[in-house]
Amino acid sequence: MTNIKDLAKMAGVSVTTVSRVLNNHPYVREDKRNAVLEAINRSNYQPNINAVHLSTGKSFLVGVVVPYIDHPYFALLIKGMASEALENNYKLVLFQTNYLETREIEALQMLKQKQIDALIICSRKCSWSTIEAYLLYGPIILCEDTRGKRVSSTFVDHYKSFMIALEHLYQKGHRKIGYCIGRKSGTNSRQRELAFKDFVENYHLPYEPAYIFEHCTHFEDGEQVIERIQQMSNPPSALLVTSDEVAAGIVTCAQNRNISIPGDLALLGFNNQPIAKMMNITTIEIPLVDIGRKLFLQGINISKEAAYQEIPVTLIERETV
Amino acid sequence: MTNIKDLAKMAGVSVTTVSRVLNNHPYVREDKRNAVLEAINRSNYQPNINAVHLSTGKSFLVGVVVPYIDHPYFALLIKGMASEALENNYKLVLFQTNYLETREIEALQMLKQKQIDALIICSRKCSWSTIEAYLLYGPIILCEDTRGKRVSSTFVDHYKSFMIALEHLYQKGHRKIGYCIGRKSGTNSRQRELAFKDFVENYHLPYEPAYIFEHCTHFEDGEQVIERIQQMSNPPSALLVTSDEVAAGIVTCAQNRNISIPGDLALLGFNNQPIAKMMNITTIEIPLVDIGRKLFLQGINISKEAAYQEIPVTLIERETV
Repeated sequence: MTNIKDLAKMAGVSVTTVSRVLNNHPYVREDKRNAVLEAINRSNYQPNINAVHLSTGKSFLVGVVVPYIDHPYFALLIKGMASEALENNYKLVLFQTNYLETREIEALQMLKQKQIDALIICSRKCSWSTIEAYLLYGPIILCEDTRGKRVSSTFVDHYKSFMIALEHLYQKGHRKIGYCIGRKSGTNSRQRELAFKDFVENYHLPYEPAYIFEHCTHFEDGEQVIERIQQMSNPPSALLVTSDEVAAGIVTCAQNRNISIPGDLALLGFNNQPIAKMMNITTIEIPLVDIGRKLFLQGINISKEAAYQEIPVTLIERETV
Repeated sequence: MTNIKDLAKMAGVSVTTVSRVLNNHPYVREDKRNAVLEAINRSNYQPNINAVHLSTGKSFLVGVVVPYIDHPYFALLIKGMASEALENNYKLVLFQTNYLETREIEALQMLKQKQIDALIICSRKCSWSTIEAYLLYGPIILCEDTRGKRVSSTFVDHYKSFMIALEHLYQKGHRKIGYCIGRKSGTNSRQRELAFKDFVENYHLPYEPAYIFEHCTHFEDGEQVIERIQQMSNPPSALLVTSDEVAAGIVTCAQNRNISIPGDLALLGFNNQPIAKMMNITTIEIPLVDIGRKLFLQGINISKEAAYQEIPVTLIERETV
């Protein structure tokens, strides 16, 4: 098979010149460029793009770390990144981690090995110090509040949005409020927990750990929430549900069991996914596709300074509160 | 600068072995792995993985073409591929095409340029001849019936499964049957259309084009189906719905409008997604995660002969028929 050295010999130029022509480098003398192009034609040379990437130091690949691919929250972030990648002639390399740290480190290793040009971490298990150790190898972008750290981010202030949601429920007369969440660890979840604690303290409400429902990620997880509530002697009257998908599952399960929403149980979802609109779920709108776009652009527009983009959220009132 | 050949010489092993160690490949003898790691330490070698890929001709990346990422059908296929990729130390490069042919060709070009080792096309817009032109550059795997073609595939016989579903509705007494589908073009959709035509002919039923509802992809698309049915003077009494997601949307919208399911309208979904179980939707189970796994393995286990794996489906009776 013809390689880059053969081409150089055929064209009577150096290997560097061939590489520059293959990369559309501007500083190549016209006669040399033509000689290389002619050699390519004569030899039926097929460039191995990894050779090109080796010489340019760019892969035009951006890595994306998500715990699950089959969840609308992450799917919508990826959708935004994918459309911006397309616009900018990049491709996405997907790391589905299931929140295993080893898989996150594999992604970081790919950045170190220059197989990807940037890494976007949508949600993580690994510690901050792990990420810090890879910062010198390329841009790492996070979807969480990184203010004060040397990492760019596009994020929602989950403390603030949780507080908006909690105060809305309070104003509607609710005093027994709980919430459903995917996992308790993680930066965003801890911000939400903090908001919840501050809220009950500010309003002199009891802090009731049983009102916090973990492992609420998918539609079908709504069932266990209803089951646990039905077993409580003093159940919550309202729930924040950090995914509309789960809120929809709770609504569906409640209908099957003749539990009135919002009469018996008020629900306030998050994200404003299409399912929330269709099922008339009151929700906090988080523009996930747009956040995905912004995360991607931070990954490819290299800047020395870390940039922090906070994305505002909006309460959308419908029929479940 | 130390390169992979220097490392191989220092460690007294082959370049392939060094490459395997750098890629965390499982099949490396422990003593050889240690020799390579020691050579890396001594030489202060910083791998540029693109150099490794250039020397091995492998990128350990597999491309995946899907029209949409934020749809459970494709998300579940990707989930299966992602877990098998992890097992085998590969990564996925994602191409979200929105069914634009130019984007599919970009993916094929990456195969040609050896930036990916194989390409899995879950659903496509481009013609068969376009794919054929890229066959010599690497494995292309399709998620459709390719029997008789020189391309491996894992697929469901959509003609057969549509027929199973249609005959179930017929046995339940339905004579006015229609179906909801994402798009009418595409190999799988054409197989389904053919089954539908053969079915109405075999059972001497009228072929009613108004009973075919296109653009039914997401949950919220269920609304337009109910709206159109409500405007019909002679509406269908039963629908096949090629995505449980859409069937769930139809059920939800029907409830809001006091349409009885299955009394006024029977529904038979496809895939057996979790939402179907929770909403008691009768459905044809298609093991998407498993299909994703099999597609991936076909991509990385290169064989000269094309292999065709047909995946059987199962009717799951619940409460919507």
